[in-house]
Order: sequence, then structure tokens, then C-alpha cells
Amino acid sequence: MSVTMYNLTVPVFSRGLTVLSTLLTKAEAHAAETGVSVESLVSARLVEDMLPLSGQIQRVSDTAKNTVGRLMTIAAPSFPDTEATFAELKARVEKTLAFLQTITAQDLEGSDTRDISVKFGKLELTLSGSDYVLKFAIPNFFFHVTTAYDILRAQGVPVGKADYLGAYS
Amino acid sequence: MSVTMYNLTVPVFSRGLTVLSTLLTKAEAHAAETGVSVESLVSARLVEDMLPLSGQIQRVSDTAKNTVGRLMTIAAPSFPDTEATFAELKARVEKTLAFLQTITAQDLEGSDTRDISVKFGKLELTLSGSDYVLKFAIPNFFFHVTTAYDILRAQGVPVGKADYLGAYS
Repeated sequence: MSVTMYNLTVPVFSRGLTVLSTLLTKAEAHAAETGVSVESLVSARLVEDMLPLSGQIQRVSDTAKNTVGRLMTIAAPSFPDTEATFAELKARVEKTLAFLQTITAQDLEGSDTRDISVKFGKLELTLSGSDYVLKFAIPNFFFHVTTAYDILRAQGVPVGKADYLGAYS
Repeated sequence: MSVTMYNLTVPVFSRGLTVLSTLLTKAEAHAAETGVSVESLVSARLVEDMLPLSGQIQRVSDTAKNTVGRLMTIAAPSFPDTEATFAELKARVEKTLAFLQTITAQDLEGSDTRDISVKFGKLELTLSGSDYVLKFAIPNFFFHVTTAYDILRAQGVPVGKADYLGAYS
């Protein structure tokens, strides 16, 4: 024993958000160097009926802050999905990180056994806090980080797996 | 307190592997219905210098079994990367699941503080067992599950986010 609910959420999400910020910085530099428009990158999708880059980043932000909010039974800050530039997307990431930085390990104590209600489309279910994190929040969080990365790769932005994995220090 | 190293690995990886098996079943059905060749789906990539679908699945399998093996300081079973059909890829997933089913919570007790050496390209580092899982293995595992999903979406296979998230029962 073992890993706390805090360890399982706040540092994991913070790390992924920091990775995303690095990817956005590289995408912005790529646009500046190649003359590719910011708008075309921010609105790029893998497939027509999947979310664009901006939407992937908004969902990463929401998953991070709302997971912690639900575990604590507080309302996480709400951000309108209006970001259309790299500066705005990075600000969204920063605001999300700033919220996570206010959370302490104590805030999440006992949340592993708390009932959490999840809605996804028509799906409504109740999971324990730890199941909610391990079966829903973490898979969903990395889905959107990875798909953001995959979109940038498909657009020719020079990012690599080491950027996705992030720093180890 | 909270979540054990077992909870953080074996059921999380087993769930993701089961999701992958469902995705492969749908991809196989899509090939049969549309006449798209199995080979073209199995070798499909998002970008030329990313792994094809088969490679993504092989890395999901490796991440799952090798993470548990390293935490236990045992050699996980080794599978050659020779799968070229959906039946073979699903068999790889099944073999990986079968290995995970042999692992008990007791097998992973104390592994949170064990030093784990990680090699990734030129990167060599040592992390505690819990950092290894949260900063490396889980992000890497979901990277490859998500990219497999993204490849199938890009190939027009009718899978959706609910398939990626999996069943809650």
C-alpha cells in the first residue's frame, strides 16, 4: 500500500497537461516556420466526425478539472470552449493546471469509496471514486492527449513519442 | 487509502485489452462486409513513420505484460511480433490477458517502492514502481490503445467512443 487518490489524479493530469503545452508550443513554432495557418492546425481533425485539435484539448482540460471536482463534490471552474489560437489553448491548459495546483492530498482523502455519477451520451452510471478514475477518467484523459498528438503528427508537426511521454525529473 | 498496485495495473490493462479485442472484432466484420482487405487494415497507419495497427496492438500487449513483469521482477512471456490477421492479433490479446489472469494482488505487494529501470530510445532512467506505472506505463498503454482506435476511425471502421471506453458492469 500504495497509491493515494491524489497521486492517481492531480500529478497524472498535471503531467499530461504539461505535455500538451509542449506539443502546442511545437505546433505554434511549426506554423510560424512553415507558414501553415494557425487556424488550419487548431481546427485539424483525424476524421470529419471526430473533434478538432482545439476540442481534444478542451476535453483534456475538462476531464482533468471535472474529475477532481467530482471526487471532491465541488464545482470545478467552468471554461467556455472558445479557444481558437495556440495562445488561447495554452492559456486554457494553464488555467486547468492552476486549478489542480490548489488541490491537496487531504482534499481527496476518502474519495476512493465515494459514489460518483457519470454521464456519457445515453450512458448513466454510478462508480466508486477509484473505479471512476481507473475505468473512466484516466482512459478518457489519455484518449484526448493521444488524439491531440496523433492530429499533430498527421499534420506533419515535428513531435515525437518522447514529447508525448514527457520529462522524467 | 486507497488503490493498490494490483488495482492500478492488472484490471486497468485487462480492461484496455478487452476493449482492443472488441475493436478488432468490429474491424474484422467491417473488412468482411465492405471487402476492404484485412491486410490493408492490419497494416494501416496514421502517418508513414508511425506504427501500423498491428504494431500498436503489439505495443499494448508488451506494455501490459512487461509492466507487470518488471514490477514483480520476473520475465513476462515473450511473443514474436508476427501477427498479420485479426485472428492472430486477437490471439495475442488473449495470451496477454491469460498472463495477467495469473497475477494476484499479493504478487504486486511492495512494488510501489521498488526501483524500476526504464529504457526508451536513448532514455534510461530509474523510477519507483508507482512512478513507473503512473508516469510511463499507463500513458504508454493508453497511447497505443487510442492510436489503434484512431487508425480504425481513419480507415472508416464504424467504432465509437463508447467502444473505446468499454463496458461498465
